[in-house]
Amino acid sequence: MENFQFQCATKIIFGRDTENLVGEELKNHTKKVLLHYGSGSIKKTGLYDKIIKSLNDAGITYVELSGVVPNPRAELVYEGIELCKKEGIKFILAVGGGSVIDSAKAIAAGYYYEGDFWDQFEGKSQVEKALPIATILTLPAAGSEASPASVVSKGNRKLAIMADCLRPVFSILNPELTFTLPAYQTAAGVTDMMAHIFERYFTNTKNVDVTDKLCEAVLRSIIKNAKIVLKEEKNYDARAEIMWAGTLAHNGLLGTGRVEDWATHRIEHELSAFYDITHGAGLAIIFPAWMKYTYKQDMNKFIQFAIEVWGIPGNDEETALAGIAATKEFFRKIGMPIAISELNLDVKEEDMQKMAEYATKFGELGSFVKLGSKEVFDIYKLAE
Amino acid sequence: MENFQFQCATKIIFGRDTENLVGEELKNHTKKVLLHYGSGSIKKTGLYDKIIKSLNDAGITYVELSGVVPNPRAELVYEGIELCKKEGIKFILAVGGGSVIDSAKAIAAGYYYEGDFWDQFEGKSQVEKALPIATILTLPAAGSEASPASVVSKGNRKLAIMADCLRPVFSILNPELTFTLPAYQTAAGVTDMMAHIFERYFTNTKNVDVTDKLCEAVLRSIIKNAKIVLKEEKNYDARAEIMWAGTLAHNGLLGTGRVEDWATHRIEHELSAFYDITHGAGLAIIFPAWMKYTYKQDMNKFIQFAIEVWGIPGNDEETALAGIAATKEFFRKIGMPIAISELNLDVKEEDMQKMAEYATKFGELGSFVKLGSKEVFDIYKLAE
Repeated sequence: MENFQFQCATKIIFGRDTENLVGEELKNHTKKVLLHYGSGSIKKTGLYDKIIKSLNDAGITYVELSGVVPNPRAELVYEGIELCKKEGIKFILAVGGGSVIDSAKAIAAGYYYEGDFWDQFEGKSQVEKALPIATILTLPAAGSEASPASVVSKGNRKLAIMADCLRPVFSILNPELTFTLPAYQTAAGVTDMMAHIFERYFTNTKNVDVTDKLCEAVLRSIIKNAKIVLKEEKNYDARAEIMWAGTLAHNGLLGTGRVEDWATHRIEHELSAFYDITHGAGLAIIFPAWMKYTYKQDMNKFIQFAIEVWGIPGNDEETALAGIAATKEFFRKIGMPIAISELNLDVKEEDMQKMAEYATKFGELGSFVKLGSKEVFDIYKLAE
Repeated sequence: MENFQFQCATKIIFGRDTENLVGEELKNHTKKVLLHYGSGSIKKTGLYDKIIKSLNDAGITYVELSGVVPNPRAELVYEGIELCKKEGIKFILAVGGGSVIDSAKAIAAGYYYEGDFWDQFEGKSQVEKALPIATILTLPAAGSEASPASVVSKGNRKLAIMADCLRPVFSILNPELTFTLPAYQTAAGVTDMMAHIFERYFTNTKNVDVTDKLCEAVLRSIIKNAKIVLKEEKNYDARAEIMWAGTLAHNGLLGTGRVEDWATHRIEHELSAFYDITHGAGLAIIFPAWMKYTYKQDMNKFIQFAIEVWGIPGNDEETALAGIAATKEFFRKIGMPIAISELNLDVKEEDMQKMAEYATKFGELGSFVKLGSKEVFDIYKLAE
């Protein structure tokens, strides 16, 4: 096991009707918030009205900034930073999925940064201070509700920042808010959270027994409950399992004491930056290809994966490959694309070359297996 | 799944040589600490010198209060509160196992309480404010290094307080510091952490799939690595797994969304309060008896326990009983007593009556099965 430091201070408020607690909870921190959300679906579902009532009841004033899109854009972040400064806002309430929360985090970090906030995403400056944020989660997927990370796009660049000060002060998770999620978004969310665990599970760090078993436990639970929610969209308990699993998949716990990988996320980020596809769908395409490309690095780990996660018996290469095939088949069954060709986009070989170069612009990717632009290109080809 | 709120803000600093970081880490919080520890074994191992050096290097001054004993006593808590007030100390550094940390928490809570601190343990007043504390853990067992609880004894009463403000600000966990633990203490610690999971695992809350699997994962990992550390006391990786598992067993994560039980802890507390036995040893005696007394409440859960934790195949009452027998046998194998008679104490039936009455003084125990004084007496008899 590697030495590590771990602190996830985010307060989780989980369960039915918990969105109504937002005003009272905010009172411990602020009197005014930036209310940040997406396209307005929260108005259709009635969530918006509940939040406004809770804010009013608690005497919290708010300024709205809506319009966050999937793969959130830098343009709105600039706007958010200006708005917070102009209105004297020192706290952001993000209502939505990972895109809204990531956008809020970028505003929070950019608020205190003197230059162009995008510098931080380009790695020119570390995030050291940020406005506090809170979230009401409507889409279990990105894990941003308790993570220190934010991913934002500008042009066709999709980059990330990470800092403990970006972890939300509190996050409200009501599984009922996910009853109306379309099957495709539910499945993409499931894929995203599984990918967050894969990035930690496949490591060269030896003797990480507790976290190995925790990873397998959360994966098995996601797999089991994903099948249920895709059939019974209003099954509270299964939705609750998926929602809590999504947070645990990415709050850092499952990576304690181990070197994480994250090559696949970078490889996928280029795909979704170039073609604006759903992140989870991109991961469903790339992860099985990455597994196939790297499994010989540690056959035993892939055999363990097949046995413990997918319940496939055996102890040889065939078992390892069956585990990878089961992963791909699961993604297919839940309605995800599993090949670039299924996206019906005209992805040319020269685009793959370009994406591979962009992905490795800051150096080789991953740690389980180090990947240069040639290897990344090969993985795009494997995923074709 | 039940609604829940969960926040464990304790920063974990884990790994080799991490005790040397204590001074630098404290600088973020204070300039002066109460250095609280036990019988002085930390002087023999050299840990004390390292800590003093780190404090000096960081310019942190300290006042010492040693002498914490297992089943920590109220007398030293009174002394600690006075000392902090007299010396103007606003931060406690606890170095040791659960007893030292619990004693520190009692001082921390008592500092701000105007009356007799014991009132808080007797439930006459809730803990709402406490001095911040930090810990350097030397005995993985109680989980107090990240928990909101403290257990202290006065006379033959052993009582607990619980409040989120009692969670340590940071805890330093270096598995190397546990190399010199005697086998008996190692095993008692293992029993204690397993018991913390049992108290959460056996619940009437339905549909708690993720946390069920997390409980099973941590239990399996403890069982596997306990066998290793008892043979190879300096096996860093196995010691590390046990140490991290001990924290995860009791930081609250494994109880999220479920009603917890805690009858067995209360039943054991009377035993260790009356006879001053090691808490873990008492749990090894009481838990299998509690399981045997309650398993019919939810046969399927005990079958699941046998299968998932102990790898026992089957699907009937025999399987459930085999899981309980395996638990008892495991405790025996790691050197724990598994019956009151093995303690070589003269525990009379009238003492059991008295303990059963004390244990239920504030009402029935548990939630999986509610236990009055008669039922608690029966469990003592089963454990005889």
